Amino acid sequence: MSSDDRREQLLRAGGELLGRRSYEEVSIDEIARAAGISKGLLYHYFPTKKDFLLAVLREETERITALTAPDPALGPLEQIEASLDAFLDYVEHHASGYATIFRTRGGGDSDIRAVLEEGRERRVEAVLEGVAGQLLAGGAASDSAALRSAVQGWIFFVEGTLLRWLDQRDLSRDELRELLRSVLIDSLRTAARIDPRLALDAAAAA
Amino acid sequence: MSSDDRREQLLRAGGELLGRRSYEEVSIDEIARAAGISKGLLYHYFPTKKDFLLAVLREETERITALTAPDPALGPLEQIEASLDAFLDYVEHHASGYATIFRTRGGGDSDIRAVLEEGRERRVEAVLEGVAGQLLAGGAASDSAALRSAVQGWIFFVEGTLLRWLDQRDLSRDELRELLRSVLIDSLRTAARIDPRLALDAAAAA
Repeated sequence: MSSDDRREQLLRAGGELLGRRSYEEVSIDEIARAAGISKGLLYHYFPTKKDFLLAVLREETERITALTAPDPALGPLEQIEASLDAFLDYVEHHASGYATIFRTRGGGDSDIRAVLEEGRERRVEAVLEGVAGQLLAGGAASDSAALRSAVQGWIFFVEGTLLRWLDQRDLSRDELRELLRSVLIDSLRTAARIDPRLALDAAAAA
Repeated sequence: MSSDDRREQLLRAGGELLGRRSYEEVSIDEIARAAGISKGLLYHYFPTKKDFLLAVLREETERITALTAPDPALGPLEQIEASLDAFLDYVEHHASGYATIFRTRGGGDSDIRAVLEEGRERRVEAVLEGVAGQLLAGGAASDSAALRSAVQGWIFFVEGTLLRWLDQRDLSRDELRELLRSVLIDSLRTAARIDPRLALDAAAAA
């Protein structure tokens, strides 16, 4: 196996393992075992547990971005639903890890927090470029403070709702998706009311 | 000064100081100086810096709960605006501390996280008992998963929006309040669509 392939395989194993268990619980030994390599070889690729975690988080951020990228063949509302479905699939599959991330925001470590915040900013941008751009007549005016505030608020709304859902599972997937979809559109509508440069495309959002 | 009064005075000074500066930056020396007492006396009341922080956070949670308690003399929409105004006043006055709390969720310390989570749960309950109960015909049905998810999501929405606002200040206070108010009502409306036991009181929410 080439060095790059091996690194990729380690990150995959880490993404799986850290999805099912919280970072604090997982030891370097266990990561090496899950990847089927020696601890020494793991340390060769990632000198510390934190280096490994940061690399896994970056890799998973890329993966989420790709998985939830809007499909331009769909209408805007179907795009939201498809992206939300992909995101919910991912979160369900990585429930423990995600609950930990939502709950602790990376804990006391500012490097980990920075990677998580970057991931969140990329989700904000993705919503602005994708859905918001299509639902707002005349485009998303990405410098609009009202729009950016609404989208950032919605990204947090998703986290708060999912944190509860992963713990309680008392809404169906369809109900959860409907809540998130509807609040996103309402948030865009409110932003358009606050910022006169924006106008929700009523036909597209109906 | 009685022991209780002194303790109260220390917590007040701590609330002010930790509102303006982040926890990591503030030393025990500085806290004692701000309260006008010796470090020894401070340690008599709070054996560690963490004990002090936990006590300050609990005290401030009480204070926020009292400040934002809905005024039953007002209509439901005016209650939301008054509570949001009180909360925004508080957050503006404690901007650095609040930004730190929203950003780090108490960092790596599970005791601090627990106090913060408890504060958030109390805000969820306050919204359910106050505004949601009045805007929903027939009461809030506080066991409704859709309603609880919507309110918890909204509490996070507020945090996400404020985190951005404290940093950028690119919306007016009125615009910010309007965004938060509107998204709350829309979230309740969506919850009422998902859970057939709920119905938004259209006249009250108009």
